[in-house]
Amino acid sequence: MGVNENVLKPLDRLSQALAGEMEAVNALIRQRMASKHAPRIPEVTAHLVEAGGKRLRPMLTLAAAKLLGYPGDYHVHLAATVEFIHTATLLHDDVVDESQQRRGRPTANLLWDNKSSVLVGDYLFARSFQLMVEPGNLRTLEILSNASAVIAEGEVLQLSAAQDLRTDEAIYLQVVRGKTAALFSAATEVGGVIAEASEEQVRALFDYGDALGIAFQIVDDLLDYGGATETIGKNVGDDFRERKLTLPVIKAVAKADQAERDFWTRVIEKGDQRDGDLEHALDLLARHGAMDAARADALDWAGRAKSALSVLPEHPIRDMLSDLADFVVSRVA
Amino acid sequence: MGVNENVLKPLDRLSQALAGEMEAVNALIRQRMASKHAPRIPEVTAHLVEAGGKRLRPMLTLAAAKLLGYPGDYHVHLAATVEFIHTATLLHDDVVDESQQRRGRPTANLLWDNKSSVLVGDYLFARSFQLMVEPGNLRTLEILSNASAVIAEGEVLQLSAAQDLRTDEAIYLQVVRGKTAALFSAATEVGGVIAEASEEQVRALFDYGDALGIAFQIVDDLLDYGGATETIGKNVGDDFRERKLTLPVIKAVAKADQAERDFWTRVIEKGDQRDGDLEHALDLLARHGAMDAARADALDWAGRAKSALSVLPEHPIRDMLSDLADFVVSRVA
Repeated sequence: MGVNENVLKPLDRLSQALAGEMEAVNALIRQRMASKHAPRIPEVTAHLVEAGGKRLRPMLTLAAAKLLGYPGDYHVHLAATVEFIHTATLLHDDVVDESQQRRGRPTANLLWDNKSSVLVGDYLFARSFQLMVEPGNLRTLEILSNASAVIAEGEVLQLSAAQDLRTDEAIYLQVVRGKTAALFSAATEVGGVIAEASEEQVRALFDYGDALGIAFQIVDDLLDYGGATETIGKNVGDDFRERKLTLPVIKAVAKADQAERDFWTRVIEKGDQRDGDLEHALDLLARHGAMDAARADALDWAGRAKSALSVLPEHPIRDMLSDLADFVVSRVA
Repeated sequence: MGVNENVLKPLDRLSQALAGEMEAVNALIRQRMASKHAPRIPEVTAHLVEAGGKRLRPMLTLAAAKLLGYPGDYHVHLAATVEFIHTATLLHDDVVDESQQRRGRPTANLLWDNKSSVLVGDYLFARSFQLMVEPGNLRTLEILSNASAVIAEGEVLQLSAAQDLRTDEAIYLQVVRGKTAALFSAATEVGGVIAEASEEQVRALFDYGDALGIAFQIVDDLLDYGGATETIGKNVGDDFRERKLTLPVIKAVAKADQAERDFWTRVIEKGDQRDGDLEHALDLLARHGAMDAARADALDWAGRAKSALSVLPEHPIRDMLSDLADFVVSRVA
């Protein structure tokens, strides 16, 4: 998904508040990514799962369950399920995007091959379904299997939406919901469902995850055009070179005159990119206020995430989730 | 899976006996392979799902449920689930094997691209999980999610077992159970479970599917070395050229002298294949009786499949399943 999970402080506080459960999640992940028969599987998964990553998604499940007072153990299974789905999609994304690096390390498709990434991704996906069956809760099964379908659909949609200047903000939102927000919202929603929260609370948890995921992805797309107030160490222009239509460009294209449209057609649709094109693109984004407008959208989604929390019980975890929404957008605010 | 589903006559009789349910399965498949947002998905799936194929696996689910007197409708969901899993694995297999043809038509990875095959396969896999959740039966969920994991594990195992002369019959069986038999046995088992069959009957249905799947794959591997008594129109030598270690070769390697071992090392492990090598390989298979021995194994598995049926109720469908086991091996008998 290409999301830089550089959301340290509120996540660190969540990590501390959920340390015991998070350890159980990690133990379960290590146990279930093993394979008796195919040693290639733990090699590939260990490379990816142990490589770090902030475990943001499983933390959301644990946080939601704890916030709603869940007394049992199955939130651990659901959190591990969410991380397995995430990891499976990363393996397949790196094949589809022909990526060479993730989290500063060579990708599995580079270290092994595309075949291993495809098949080990399938294995993790299947393992995620085994895990999600274990709590015996049909509603969480529906939520997570629906999320899996929305994720895959979003990825396919992105294939055709990329390199197509007709991609508008509605399609962008659809893609973002699929590639990022669907798993965020499923993660928070299942935490509420397993805790037997009220319908209103479950809906609020869904809305929080959905809005947080959208804010998160918009920020990531902004950072790709250097939208940070301070240097973050992310390469500027990757999406431009891959001809992905993200929010800043969509906004600039909507305001383009004929000469600018010709430029975008050449660099994005035809893929004919020359020296100085990225700089010209950045100029156009600035000229039309596209970065500021996308930033305002991200802040708006973060605000919606925070508002959704209002119907949930007062609890230190609720405050951390609220801070998390602020922190996600603080990278571009 | 590379399995030639040329098992016409008993399957035709099953098709007739299950015509109404099979129509419901096909309608459900068409409905669920749609996508509101990503038109690429129905393009790719229609190419594959409508291309024919005998629907052997979903038929096994319907047959098992009917044989055990199931009065409801959920066997249709389970049968469609099985076909979705099968179709998803075909899409990913064709990417992994770099195949260009399936069922006499160009593969999806050739018509579109590997990206579409990977992501649409993921979509079908997710849709299969949505479908299998709907009957609300946790035991069928366990069976099908376990089968998915065994399938993926078998595919990864095949990656490392291919091109490795140390692959023995035990590893071969493991691979075959993963790539073929796991879905056959899950297909029959869930039919029994949804019909609330006794434990003994459920076990028998599993054993039937397992043995049938193994016989099926051994036959397919034999046909790849021309093991048919009459011409079938299958290319001889595909597995040889792809350096896959299948049962006939494993048996010949086990009896090889040093010169023969050097030959197998060169053509399979090193992939250095020259004119006349396939003919020499066929000579070695004949000299060591490897084809006959593999054929005997296939017949033995077909016999086990038939024996397993003995604890199931007398029923025309039971006879058809028994005939099906004979028919699967009749292609090489």
